[in-house]
Amino acid sequence: MAPLVPRSGDAVFANVERVNAELFTLTYGAIVRQLLTDLEEVEEVNKQLDQMGYNIGIRLIDEFLAKSNVSRCVDFKETTEVIAKVGFKMFLGVTASVTNWDADGTSCSLVLEDNPLVDFVELPDTCQGLYYCNILSGVIRGALEMVSMKTEVNWVRDMLRGDDAYELRVKLLKQVPEEYPYKDDE
Amino acid sequence: MAPLVPRSGDAVFANVERVNAELFTLTYGAIVRQLLTDLEEVEEVNKQLDQMGYNIGIRLIDEFLAKSNVSRCVDFKETTEVIAKVGFKMFLGVTASVTNWDADGTSCSLVLEDNPLVDFVELPDTCQGLYYCNILSGVIRGALEMVSMKTEVNWVRDMLRGDDAYELRVKLLKQVPEEYPYKDDE
Repeated sequence: MAPLVPRSGDAVFANVERVNAELFTLTYGAIVRQLLTDLEEVEEVNKQLDQMGYNIGIRLIDEFLAKSNVSRCVDFKETTEVIAKVGFKMFLGVTASVTNWDADGTSCSLVLEDNPLVDFVELPDTCQGLYYCNILSGVIRGALEMVSMKTEVNWVRDMLRGDDAYELRVKLLKQVPEEYPYKDDE
Repeated sequence: MAPLVPRSGDAVFANVERVNAELFTLTYGAIVRQLLTDLEEVEEVNKQLDQMGYNIGIRLIDEFLAKSNVSRCVDFKETTEVIAKVGFKMFLGVTASVTNWDADGTSCSLVLEDNPLVDFVELPDTCQGLYYCNILSGVIRGALEMVSMKTEVNWVRDMLRGDDAYELRVKLLKQVPEEYPYKDDE
């Protein structure tokens, strides 16, 4: 069989099943509102969104690997580029840029050029500590863990908090040996 | 200005912004799981999903009217056809059929041919009373209320409960005079 060629984010996005972005945005908003009602503490909501994202990420990585034809990346640098250019495009229809690498190449920032999660969103004063998009940090953390990279992912800029962009800081904590649910037969 | 021609579900769906269906499905699954954890009673989860859907529906109708070029429908029968063929397609990428009309034309069923909400879903025994897709009934109820139709929407068949299809029963309770947030200037 000819080797599979990795597909561009646009090509992948054009070929996956999709739903209306506004439906997704409103559904996500309904989750956040529900969590704020149920958990009361904004800190708890941040944690819960991150955890929900993690649970999604550990499953979404399968779809990502299956549809994108991306094989395991050689290093963290390549991995973050793939997340930014293929991953974000494939799932949200937008891309991110990778910037602000630290000297030893273990931390970088993903800056979102567009963010469909926040359309129509304004945070009331009572929610100022909320990281509204925290599900995204969880998704990235979960997905990376399934390809053997333990990371810490945090927001450093958030337009809903008055910043000029959405910036996620991704820090590689360690690369763990692969011992995940299944092995590649290749 | 030339009158706008209503667009087919396919045409509308091709032109709206979209996100990956699997991300949506997993995100929706995360909501349901969260509600089951927080609320414990399956009955309460059903209610909450319906309420979340209602809140989404009352906003989604704007996008629907703006993008579909559908003008106000003349009657309940036409409305349900539009929901089935344009609404479902535009938001979920699937269509439904309208069947089982009652004699006086105020109740019918929407039967879903495909249901992206339930991919990968299996209900554990503890959740047997759950209407997993109850958000959909809420969305329809909310959207219809914004175009002056008070309805009751319930599941009568649900494949997650062992039935052979997804069937929503929509009953028109009354057509209320328009007194909603804004008026058409036309």
